[in-house]
Amino acid sequence: MTTPPPNAAAFSCPLPLSTRAEIQIAHGGGGRLTQELIDTIFAPAFRNAALDARHDGAALVLGAGTGKLAFTTDSHVVSPLFFPGGDIGKLAVCGTVNDLAMCGARPRWLSAGFILEEGLPVETLRRVVASMAEAARAAGVEIVTGDTKVVERGKGDGLYVNTAGVGVIERDVAIAPASVRPGDIVLLSGDIGRHGMAILAQREGLAFESPIESDCACLWPAVEALLACGASVHCLRDLTRGGLATATIEIAEAAQVELALDEGAVEVTEPVRGACEILGMDPFYVANEGRFIAIVPEADAEGALAAISSHAHGGPARKIGIVREAKRPRVTLRSVVGVERILDRLSGEQLPRIC
Amino acid sequence: MTTPPPNAAAFSCPLPLSTRAEIQIAHGGGGRLTQELIDTIFAPAFRNAALDARHDGAALVLGAGTGKLAFTTDSHVVSPLFFPGGDIGKLAVCGTVNDLAMCGARPRWLSAGFILEEGLPVETLRRVVASMAEAARAAGVEIVTGDTKVVERGKGDGLYVNTAGVGVIERDVAIAPASVRPGDIVLLSGDIGRHGMAILAQREGLAFESPIESDCACLWPAVEALLACGASVHCLRDLTRGGLATATIEIAEAAQVELALDEGAVEVTEPVRGACEILGMDPFYVANEGRFIAIVPEADAEGALAAISSHAHGGPARKIGIVREAKRPRVTLRSVVGVERILDRLSGEQLPRIC
Repeated sequence: MTTPPPNAAAFSCPLPLSTRAEIQIAHGGGGRLTQELIDTIFAPAFRNAALDARHDGAALVLGAGTGKLAFTTDSHVVSPLFFPGGDIGKLAVCGTVNDLAMCGARPRWLSAGFILEEGLPVETLRRVVASMAEAARAAGVEIVTGDTKVVERGKGDGLYVNTAGVGVIERDVAIAPASVRPGDIVLLSGDIGRHGMAILAQREGLAFESPIESDCACLWPAVEALLACGASVHCLRDLTRGGLATATIEIAEAAQVELALDEGAVEVTEPVRGACEILGMDPFYVANEGRFIAIVPEADAEGALAAISSHAHGGPARKIGIVREAKRPRVTLRSVVGVERILDRLSGEQLPRIC
Repeated sequence: MTTPPPNAAAFSCPLPLSTRAEIQIAHGGGGRLTQELIDTIFAPAFRNAALDARHDGAALVLGAGTGKLAFTTDSHVVSPLFFPGGDIGKLAVCGTVNDLAMCGARPRWLSAGFILEEGLPVETLRRVVASMAEAARAAGVEIVTGDTKVVERGKGDGLYVNTAGVGVIERDVAIAPASVRPGDIVLLSGDIGRHGMAILAQREGLAFESPIESDCACLWPAVEALLACGASVHCLRDLTRGGLATATIEIAEAAQVELALDEGAVEVTEPVRGACEILGMDPFYVANEGRFIAIVPEADAEGALAAISSHAHGGPARKIGIVREAKRPRVTLRSVVGVERILDRLSGEQLPRIC
């Protein structure tokens, strides 16, 4: 019998939600507690086929012969509102555009719902709105409808913004965890960990020799190139809250497979690696806002890599792992010295309010 | 020269937004300051045809021969979360369903974005979600995608929820202020003032002999019957923030006409009238969440009245006014004793956080 790592049980087996009385910060972290909230409260109440697919957005069928739409939403509560490489406005547009892209949908229209705190400088709102407009233009989407509410001082935090998005699924694709097959290759579009560490460095007032900029970017051009290259795309996922580890765990569980990743193939820049070491963070769990994984058949992997790399940010895309049959779904990570470990969902909150 | 009413200038000519430094509660009230925010910040930045139409939702054209979609969003910050006749969950579903209905669109799909405050009782979330699910079932819509964020204690107020909605415009309609013509008739679907006064009575701990229940309800069945009856529907508008007065002023300004309303034709129940008198409110400016006006040609008015009344709440529907040509767009209200006055936009905030 081996000794379990200290506190492993405490972290990996939190109380079920039914025995918790109050919402905790970690319920918004994208990890185990967020999943529990979805499983025990939202999914049973709202049950329908689109929601049950558990993707970044819903695929909607208008009627016979009319094609499919994608529909998604994200609220943004990032703190601070402005950070190296972006701000809450750019983040809100890119985040929703990226969720549509992950459905294989061309992003077309966004809504914008603002919750403003009394006393917010009008100039701050103006800067955020200008940033949203610029990001929308760059992504080729229109912000076509909106809403503004104002809450009293101390009932908000400057500015929260919700963006919902509608996109058009133009090709006959089945991009979903259920399409993932053993033998498929896992591709990653660039380096990881920048967004979360940029926010954290800004928030903590840390100064590094090379400042870390968020990777916040619109992923549709890379996805459009990928779809156009003829590769059969089985699954796409952007690596937001919970990072690469959480995204791959969600896919492994939904597809009932093992994703075997190769740590040495995953690029983490030196500034991000250094900041993670100082702050005790694991870059595999740090949020990104402009990176995604694509899972494709082995025969299509080289073409897919070239297509993604033609529009990728943060370096060429890389093969980072393969899909294996598995009795129990899991994600394994082989280190550079050949040791294999299992990646598990975070139960707590690593970085609150990073998006 | 007549003497202006005291303080009229101070109330009717607030400083333009460019000279204000901070967001005020009234920027979220749906009155003059909200309009200023839209005109000076959102509309110039996001400019596009759908947004410029200034309707409750955007009409989207997918492509040649594919029909039109409606898309809308609302954030909900109502306080308290639960009130006589409804709660924030029912309000969020009905509010977005109603905005789609006002575009003449069959409501189909909703998103739900939650911003939860750390410490919110899980049981509160469960009740709100159950109420949303029930309202969605009753309205025939599916909640197909969602998002949850958690903010620290003191950075929210229990629970805010954004709903965005997508509907299908099944008939070839042009429901918009631009379609309104002199000679058209203004129809109102029921009594006014209940939602705002229900919230205010609850918030202030006022007990009336007959408690006031919110009129919160889904308006699609009445709109569907109206569209099906063959009436040519020129404009629809639900009477939310700012009430009947603000809704009609917006239409008069957009259509460049006068709406001449008859005060005696507008039903205000005794409990609402009494509460308004005690609290110094004008029921024409109080928010409703289940009432709308329809503007139709005179020849179609009787048929339209019957169709709306067959599904109206708080009701029968009534003719409350006519559309007249006007050099300056305005809304006039003829009192029961025959005195005519002009309804003006509120510059301040009458009832913060009623939706």
